[in-house]
Amino acid sequence: MNIDMIRAAADRLMGHARRTPMLTSPFLDDIAGRRVLIKPECLQHTGSFKFRGGWSAVSALDEATRKRGVIAYSSGNHAQGVALAAAQHGAPAVIVMPQDAPKLKIDNTRALGAEVLLYDRAGGENREAVGGKIAEDRNLTLIRPYDEPQVIAGQGTTGLEIAEQTAELGVTSGDVLACCGGGGLTSGIALALEAEAPAMRARPVEPEGFDDVARSLASGTIQSNLTQSGSLCDAIITPKPGDITFPILSRLCGPGMVVSEDDALRAMALAFKRLKIVIEPGGAVALAAALFHGDQIEGDAVVAVCTGGNVDADVFANAITRFD
Amino acid sequence: MNIDMIRAAADRLMGHARRTPMLTSPFLDDIAGRRVLIKPECLQHTGSFKFRGGWSAVSALDEATRKRGVIAYSSGNHAQGVALAAAQHGAPAVIVMPQDAPKLKIDNTRALGAEVLLYDRAGGENREAVGGKIAEDRNLTLIRPYDEPQVIAGQGTTGLEIAEQTAELGVTSGDVLACCGGGGLTSGIALALEAEAPAMRARPVEPEGFDDVARSLASGTIQSNLTQSGSLCDAIITPKPGDITFPILSRLCGPGMVVSEDDALRAMALAFKRLKIVIEPGGAVALAAALFHGDQIEGDAVVAVCTGGNVDADVFANAITRFD
Repeated sequence: MNIDMIRAAADRLMGHARRTPMLTSPFLDDIAGRRVLIKPECLQHTGSFKFRGGWSAVSALDEATRKRGVIAYSSGNHAQGVALAAAQHGAPAVIVMPQDAPKLKIDNTRALGAEVLLYDRAGGENREAVGGKIAEDRNLTLIRPYDEPQVIAGQGTTGLEIAEQTAELGVTSGDVLACCGGGGLTSGIALALEAEAPAMRARPVEPEGFDDVARSLASGTIQSNLTQSGSLCDAIITPKPGDITFPILSRLCGPGMVVSEDDALRAMALAFKRLKIVIEPGGAVALAAALFHGDQIEGDAVVAVCTGGNVDADVFANAITRFD
Repeated sequence: MNIDMIRAAADRLMGHARRTPMLTSPFLDDIAGRRVLIKPECLQHTGSFKFRGGWSAVSALDEATRKRGVIAYSSGNHAQGVALAAAQHGAPAVIVMPQDAPKLKIDNTRALGAEVLLYDRAGGENREAVGGKIAEDRNLTLIRPYDEPQVIAGQGTTGLEIAEQTAELGVTSGDVLACCGGGGLTSGIALALEAEAPAMRARPVEPEGFDDVARSLASGTIQSNLTQSGSLCDAIITPKPGDITFPILSRLCGPGMVVSEDDALRAMALAFKRLKIVIEPGGAVALAAALFHGDQIEGDAVVAVCTGGNVDADVFANAITRFD
C-alpha cells in the first residue's frame, strides 16, 4: 500500500469519479474560530466517497477476472459504490445485504444493476455463508469495504484532491478531519498527504460510543467497539480498524476525535444552511469536530471531509428543524 | 451587452467565484427519459448565482468609484451577493431591504458587512426614496439586480462553464433550462451559449401565475405579472422582464416553460435524495421542468440550472418529507 497505487487509481478514476469542489462559508469560519474548508464527498456519484474505492477496485482487475464479476458485503454506501462501478464496467456484481437494511438502499443497489442477495441477520444467518457459495460457483472477486489495497487507493484520491485544492487556497498545513469507520478513507488520505502535503495531517473522527479507532491510536493496538448498532451514524460503525489500515493510521495520523450524535446533527443543520449540501449523520462528524471542538485542533485552517449524504428524509428534516 | 463582457467578467471572477460542478444521477435520467445535467449554483458563494453578478459589477468599477461604495435594493439573494462581493473588495455597501424580509436574509446581509436600511413596504414607503438620499449624499453606485450589463455579464459566466462542462460530457446540443426572474441569468447564459455552444439553447422556466417572461416571449412584447407575492418561489418573482434582458431573451431563447409549485417542491425532494444538494423553490423550477415536462423538450440531454438554495428549514423539511 503506497502513494504510487493512489496515483495510479487517480489516473483510472479520471473522468469517472467526480472531482468534488472545496466549499467554505464565512459563517462557519466564525463558529470554528478558524478557516474551515469542506470537501463534500456527498456530491460524489452514489452520494458518498465509496464510489472512488469501488471504481478503483473494479478497474484494477484484469479483463477476464472482471468479466466473471465481483461480490461485496454491505448494507449501505459501499454496496452502491461497487454496484455502480461494476455496472459502468459491464461487470456482474453481487451484493450481499441484510434483510433489514433500509429498503431505499436495497432498491438503489438493485437499480444500479447489482444482484442483491438478502440474508437474515437477526435470524443468525451469516453473510459469508450466504455469499460464499455463489462467489465460489461463479468465481467472483470479493471487494472488501476498507481492508483492501485498491479500495484504500481509490479513497486516497480524495487526499490528492485535498492537497491540490488547499494549496490553491493558500493552505499548506493543518489537520484534515475525516469521518472514520474501518479507516479506508482516512488511511488513503493520510498516505496522499504524506506525499503531497507533508505539513498536513489526517485525523479520524468518530461518534461517541463507537470510538474504536481513537482508542486504538491512543493505545497503539487494535481495539474493538462493544456494540455495533444504535447509532444514527450507521455509515461509519465498524467493529474495529483493519489490519491494513491500522498500521497506516498509526504511523501517520494525529489523535482521533470523538463527537456526540447531537454535534453531528447540528453540523448537518449548519451544512444545510450555510453550504447547501446534504450530509448524513455519519458523514457529518468531521465537520462537527471542526466546528465544535476547535480546542483540540491547532492552526489557522482545518479541512473537514463530509463523507456521504445518504440519509432518510425524516432524519434530515428533524435535524434541520431542531437545530434551526 | 456582448460576449466579450462575459469573457472579461469570467477573468475577473477567476479565483473568486466558485466553478460549480456538473451533477448527474441515473435515477433522475430515468424520471426524465433523457440525460439530465444539473448545474448547482446553490453551491456558489452566498448560496446562489447572484454572487457572480455582484462580483462582476463591483470589480468593474474604477477604484475611486468603488471606494465611495455601492447600493442595491433586494430582499434576498442579490442582497447577499452584492454584500459579500463589496466586502471582499473593501467597498462599503448599503442594501435597502423591506422590513418584512426574512430575518435570516437581513441578518446574513448585515453579517456579510453591509449596512442594511429597512423600509416599510406594507406602509407604502418607497425603497427608491429611502435609498435615494443616501445614494446621492455618498455618491454610491446603484447595482440593479438584472437590468445591468455588468450583472448580466457575471451571471453569463455560468453559461461559459455550462458550455465547457457539457462538451466534456459529450453533450453539444439541447436545451439549457434556467430559473428565471428578471432574466439576468437567462440572458447571460443565452449570450454565452450563442458564442460557445451554438447548438444549445437557453430557455426560461417560471412558476405558474408568475409567467411574465414566457408570455412576453410568446407575444413578442414585454408582459407583466398581475401579482408579485404569494409564491414560495419568491427568489424569481419579478414584475416583468428587463429592458436590457428582454431583447436578448427574445432573440436567443426557446419558448418559456411553466411549472406548478408542487412540481418545484417535488424537484427539491429529488435533488435532496439523488444529488445531495439543497435548492429553494425558486431555484428548483428548471429541474422540475426537466424532470416532469419532458414532452416540451427535444433531444437526448437537457441541462437544468439550480439557481439557489436559500430556503428556510421548515419549507425544506416539508418538501422532502411530503414527496419522499
